[in-house]
Amino acid sequence: MFIKGIFLLLATSAVCHGVNLVDSFKALRLEREYAQYMRKRANFINDEEKQSLGSDLTLNDKEKIVNERLMELKKAEIDQGLSDPASFIPWNHFFSVLDRINSSELFHIIQKMPKGGILHAHDTALCSTDYVVSLTYRDNLWQCEDTTTGALQFKFSREAPPSTDSCSWTLVKTEREAQGEEEYNSKLRSQLSLYTTDPINHNRDVDSIWRQFMGLFGVNSGLLMYAPVWREYYYQFLTEMMEDGVQYLELRGTLPQLYDLDGKVYNEEENLQIYYEETQRFMRENPTFIGAKFIYAPVRVVTEPDQPALMQKVVDLHNKYPNFMAGFDLVGQEDKGLPLIDFSKNLLSLPDSIDFFFHAGETNWYGETDENLVDAVLLGTKRIGHGYAITKHPRVMREIRRKNIAVEVCPISNQVLRLVSDIRNHPMIYFMANDLPIVISSDDPSFWEATPLSHDFYIAFLGMTASYHDLRILKQLAMNSITYSSMNRSEKDRATKLWQAEWDKFINEMAASLA
Amino acid sequence: MFIKGIFLLLATSAVCHGVNLVDSFKALRLEREYAQYMRKRANFINDEEKQSLGSDLTLNDKEKIVNERLMELKKAEIDQGLSDPASFIPWNHFFSVLDRINSSELFHIIQKMPKGGILHAHDTALCSTDYVVSLTYRDNLWQCEDTTTGALQFKFSREAPPSTDSCSWTLVKTEREAQGEEEYNSKLRSQLSLYTTDPINHNRDVDSIWRQFMGLFGVNSGLLMYAPVWREYYYQFLTEMMEDGVQYLELRGTLPQLYDLDGKVYNEEENLQIYYEETQRFMRENPTFIGAKFIYAPVRVVTEPDQPALMQKVVDLHNKYPNFMAGFDLVGQEDKGLPLIDFSKNLLSLPDSIDFFFHAGETNWYGETDENLVDAVLLGTKRIGHGYAITKHPRVMREIRRKNIAVEVCPISNQVLRLVSDIRNHPMIYFMANDLPIVISSDDPSFWEATPLSHDFYIAFLGMTASYHDLRILKQLAMNSITYSSMNRSEKDRATKLWQAEWDKFINEMAASLA
Repeated sequence: MFIKGIFLLLATSAVCHGVNLVDSFKALRLEREYAQYMRKRANFINDEEKQSLGSDLTLNDKEKIVNERLMELKKAEIDQGLSDPASFIPWNHFFSVLDRINSSELFHIIQKMPKGGILHAHDTALCSTDYVVSLTYRDNLWQCEDTTTGALQFKFSREAPPSTDSCSWTLVKTEREAQGEEEYNSKLRSQLSLYTTDPINHNRDVDSIWRQFMGLFGVNSGLLMYAPVWREYYYQFLTEMMEDGVQYLELRGTLPQLYDLDGKVYNEEENLQIYYEETQRFMRENPTFIGAKFIYAPVRVVTEPDQPALMQKVVDLHNKYPNFMAGFDLVGQEDKGLPLIDFSKNLLSLPDSIDFFFHAGETNWYGETDENLVDAVLLGTKRIGHGYAITKHPRVMREIRRKNIAVEVCPISNQVLRLVSDIRNHPMIYFMANDLPIVISSDDPSFWEATPLSHDFYIAFLGMTASYHDLRILKQLAMNSITYSSMNRSEKDRATKLWQAEWDKFINEMAASLA
Repeated sequence: MFIKGIFLLLATSAVCHGVNLVDSFKALRLEREYAQYMRKRANFINDEEKQSLGSDLTLNDKEKIVNERLMELKKAEIDQGLSDPASFIPWNHFFSVLDRINSSELFHIIQKMPKGGILHAHDTALCSTDYVVSLTYRDNLWQCEDTTTGALQFKFSREAPPSTDSCSWTLVKTEREAQGEEEYNSKLRSQLSLYTTDPINHNRDVDSIWRQFMGLFGVNSGLLMYAPVWREYYYQFLTEMMEDGVQYLELRGTLPQLYDLDGKVYNEEENLQIYYEETQRFMRENPTFIGAKFIYAPVRVVTEPDQPALMQKVVDLHNKYPNFMAGFDLVGQEDKGLPLIDFSKNLLSLPDSIDFFFHAGETNWYGETDENLVDAVLLGTKRIGHGYAITKHPRVMREIRRKNIAVEVCPISNQVLRLVSDIRNHPMIYFMANDLPIVISSDDPSFWEATPLSHDFYIAFLGMTASYHDLRILKQLAMNSITYSSMNRSEKDRATKLWQAEWDKFINEMAASLA
């Protein structure tokens, strides 16, 4: 009956339009084929979407309202980028678009959003530059300016510290008055972060930027290693974190020697004790704060003869703070420092209770520094810091899937430290697209004048996800930061509850404001 | 007995060195554990190596000699890069290192090496700039210079072509004499390729460079579309190819209308006939030449109403040259042209005998232009042009493995046209590391003053492979260009023999010169 009908239709059509029956038949078949094609295509794209991070989540009605606004804003950014590629934020160097980001509604939403925890950040590169500048207004602060390099050093002291050939100490207060506050502070800021309003010099390579980057740690060390400031700086970061929608921290630190005005020198245990006490205090004073843990992470320059002593220190610290001290890592420019293999023998001697969270593959080399990834995995690392080179390593990728090893991805850091220019080339997009274990982190937010986590979430959302990726991918990234933390099961349960409460509050408030 | 011996050893050791038995035991266990670790590590790295492109090949004794020299040179480049990252060639823009490449021994070896075929190159962007400049010395060549843009146009004609407001025609000969040969040619060259000795402007985005790039096609069109030149230009490229160690070509062409001095206009069939005749002639005159095929690839701007006529043309051309015309593609900036989906209905109407070789995913966008990859795969493409965005698409990746669809990767093109800066970030390194189907090609070598294929092989070898990847990966890439060509089985057998003979000759000569 149906077939007969089609014949009739075709015959009529043939008569009316003067086309022959064969052509009409062909046209009909093509229509059918095309409809089938479009169905297959929709399934195909749907299938890809279903494999990506966050796709398992289902949004409730209020989340849908928030999502709608979020996606309007994302679409507007992408549409602008499609018509003017140089205007697209992830294509640009972070410094050149920071003002635009800070004034964007999309960023403000992400900032308010509870993002879980920061699992990769370094001890003296945390707080806002404004706060660090404010520290220099304190009493008893001296400075010297290297006569050849112009690099600043600071020291808190009742009396002037002894001067050397290249360094004569004056009170900061005096210097600031002499130079004028604005000029002084502007010069100071330029030595506290890499941020600059100058045009980006694209010819600087990774070594050149790392030299400047390491210099920052030198400038702020005298300021921050003053024990009372050390304590406050950490507490301040927890405060800034909470304001930025972050409730948990796993801090990597080198535990440097601290000092005070009375000449006391604080060793690693005493340093760690400060972190512990401040964490406890912050938890008491902030009931929605989840907590913090510490990863001991000295610089990767310790040679073989000194490694047994280092391992003993790791064991001692772990014994003293078995829960607060989450584990061990090594830091510094991977291309220049000792590779993991040079530590492996001594690392094997550590008890199994000490977890590893190794930096590995923060490099563009292939078959060189990136082999740290192999050692990280073989040594049983719980997470991988950066892992930028990971997609070049098929077996590492397999182990990561098998053992569910999360990669701590720090997009802004990778751009500023010259691994990648256009963020859309970040290799970890592969992890997003394939729902592989990933967390987004900020590394050294102070050194690029970024917020504790929001800027990295923003850049990842715009530059590392598909146009169709929505609130679910951000929510999943927040959840991942709890899942892949080193918290134990009961801590994670509590963490999830605290985060979920903040999430619901955010969604409720945001949905209400959009209604 | 063994255990007893160890005890004795430990006891002696304990007595001699004053260490206790437990420590000695621990040390011994650690040594054993470490030895085991080192074995596991070697296996792990070996396992990764075994998964990569070319790892199945075994080098014979002479190949080993050549390989040794090749790897010495590669190591020297990498070592220099490790100590001074900005000096590493793949980190730099191609233009700024072209002179260095051209004078390097590693490049000269790669240039002599038989590299198989070029499977991705465009009709009017092939020959050396020197050759194109030489064409402008011919009789009857007129030019006009756009009064506002300064853009040149050319036309062969017995009489001056009719002038317009923005364009008045003069003989090139006259202009060259008036301006001075050097100055004239230098200005001309600047409009024939993107190459420049000026510092690279990293702030130019993909649209900006594409505008200039498309302009080049405009400048050389009047020159090349003169039928006698069209014929010679193609023949000249085959000659340059052979000099560059390339024996086979699959050319993408738009088949533009050609003209001659008598006012004859050559249509698509006549144009294709020229390619066919010149290919035959070149084969007769060059017994080691494998051959060439043609992929009809008009610009992706044909709207729906005009598509049926285009499809008919494809069918007609295919019927006329069923073997020479390998198939169909669409060209032009993917971000700006019509997406594949807009052609899909009409493409479905084509007979199965017409193969597709679609450009797809030549973009940094994700969830936009890159969805051409989905259509390319669903429409049954035999290969994918560029596929730059492919690692963002898990299902596309799966289909590629399943159907063995090769990706035509053009590293220099991708850098010059601003998809990637540091070549070590090229996503297709994933294909090398995982032995996925890949060929290296050159796209538009004339427009970056590159050789037909050697520069792309060189950049891929230095920037897209691991330090340990050796002659085998280059040999495999050459072999892949035959495997993934559109030749039929018997053609491939013949091609392999012709390539193998050249390869053996290269190895023999090179090994002898190194002995």
